[in-house]
Amino acid sequence: MKSTSLNPHLNYDLYAHGIVESVGEGVTELVPGDHVLPVFTGECKECAHCMSEESNLCDLLRINVDRGVMIDDGQSRFTIDGKPIFHFLGTSTFSEYTVIHVGCVAKIDPEAPLDKVCLLSCGISTGLGATLNVTKPKKGMTVAIFGLGAVGLAAMEGARMSGASRIIGVDLNPAKHEQAKKFGCTDFVNPKDHTKPVQEVIVEMTDGGVNRAVECTGNADAMISAFECVHDGWGVAHKEAVFKTHPMNFLNERTLRGTFFGNYKPRTGLPGVVDMYMRKELELDKFITHSLPFSQINTAFDLMLRGEGLRCVIRMEE
Amino acid sequence: MKSTSLNPHLNYDLYAHGIVESVGEGVTELVPGDHVLPVFTGECKECAHCMSEESNLCDLLRINVDRGVMIDDGQSRFTIDGKPIFHFLGTSTFSEYTVIHVGCVAKIDPEAPLDKVCLLSCGISTGLGATLNVTKPKKGMTVAIFGLGAVGLAAMEGARMSGASRIIGVDLNPAKHEQAKKFGCTDFVNPKDHTKPVQEVIVEMTDGGVNRAVECTGNADAMISAFECVHDGWGVAHKEAVFKTHPMNFLNERTLRGTFFGNYKPRTGLPGVVDMYMRKELELDKFITHSLPFSQINTAFDLMLRGEGLRCVIRMEE
Repeated sequence: MKSTSLNPHLNYDLYAHGIVESVGEGVTELVPGDHVLPVFTGECKECAHCMSEESNLCDLLRINVDRGVMIDDGQSRFTIDGKPIFHFLGTSTFSEYTVIHVGCVAKIDPEAPLDKVCLLSCGISTGLGATLNVTKPKKGMTVAIFGLGAVGLAAMEGARMSGASRIIGVDLNPAKHEQAKKFGCTDFVNPKDHTKPVQEVIVEMTDGGVNRAVECTGNADAMISAFECVHDGWGVAHKEAVFKTHPMNFLNERTLRGTFFGNYKPRTGLPGVVDMYMRKELELDKFITHSLPFSQINTAFDLMLRGEGLRCVIRMEE
Repeated sequence: MKSTSLNPHLNYDLYAHGIVESVGEGVTELVPGDHVLPVFTGECKECAHCMSEESNLCDLLRINVDRGVMIDDGQSRFTIDGKPIFHFLGTSTFSEYTVIHVGCVAKIDPEAPLDKVCLLSCGISTGLGATLNVTKPKKGMTVAIFGLGAVGLAAMEGARMSGASRIIGVDLNPAKHEQAKKFGCTDFVNPKDHTKPVQEVIVEMTDGGVNRAVECTGNADAMISAFECVHDGWGVAHKEAVFKTHPMNFLNERTLRGTFFGNYKPRTGLPGVVDMYMRKELELDKFITHSLPFSQINTAFDLMLRGEGLRCVIRMEE
């Protein structure tokens, strides 16, 4: 089995970063001691998707919440007292040691602080890439971000890094405004403050619409608003679900792009994102509002459910 | 009035090409004798759209079927016995002489045969640009074209020019297959020949879907099929209307782009398309199946309605 020969064994913790402890037979890309980010979706580097410069949906290691094992061979790599334990999302990161397919780990700069760049293993890269890789605003453009959770603020961080002249944050929670300023937010719009649809408010604010919109809520109404608030002729909206809009909105040269994990290929793309952080172009520290020991993980969930803070880093030690 | 000083007067016929007879005050880009293509949508070169590299929807001269005059000043440039006559679609090309805004004419290579390149004033550029400028297939990619009228075959011509390895034509009329072969069609699918949705047929034929799909029918069901027959991860579909599809189709990295006139800016873009024809990269002659004098224009409409032939060029002389 090719797969079993490709297992790096990671000394691993819940920051979703790790240090390689040992590698399986045939693994040549990693050696013990390498610093890595494990990712819930992989990159085998051999399938048609990995060979395509346009896709990050690896045939072998694409996200699969139901797989329960490392790859589709039905074999778990974990046991307790001889009893098999299922894997979770390819990485199984709620433990100090784990076994991960080499295709699901990105080797990164060993100088990078693991307790910060761990954020890049999922949501922050998703939002950042939606802007930098997918909607690609040019310097001086206007950008609207729908939903100012961590993914939305990461998309906003991408707009800030791109030199957007105006960044409009949209959220139903007025408390999000102050926080968003750290990410470059120049204007805040709360749909609850207006009787007309928020897309009309934004079109009026921007003399015809924004250049780019990124939708990060998953709400279908927000998707329609995001699509319709972009300027005809050159607007690009990024969103992730079904919507219904007037046919002329397409004829008028708008583009709708869906994306997954910010279009980053994990192994190929994440090391460069870590480098952006090391060069101080990407600011990650401001996303981390809490840090708690594993014993208080339920407090972390409570914080998330109450919408308090952005990212809580869980550490294994007390 | 700036507009009245910008009128080139064209010696003009129904091929939708012309030779400049005189120019209005302030027109410096054209001189009498220049060969031009008049276009139903314009390019003022000064508005935000014209300044944007992403849009061709000129604020001043964008297509307006109801305008009835040259620009929004309410003034017609035509009279008969002192009575004003309305303009049509900015170009008013059903006459031997016309008056057109300089923003609606593209100056082209005087060596180009006007009775051939006239086709580029509308549908052929629309289809060609949908492929070359919007979906942009790379060499070796697979492309599906929905609807094999002249616009669809122009989109197919763009796929052929791009070096597509496989070009799948989709049409309800089986007679379209033979004609499409001249445009690079390698596979023909008639949805009537299958019990399952045509997108499923294409996905099976192509091991997961095509790289690019261009929808040229205007039919909402065809749009859904075109969107869903592209491969997840890198598929780009071009279409022009509302549709409903499963949210995962977006999350799986597909892109939906709408476009108008193939994203060509008329003055800036068309001369280069004429040059592609002169270099024999673009084949136009095969689109012209009929040529009739103006006196038989109703026969030309009958041919179109019966779906016979592709393009009928109307000439003013018998």
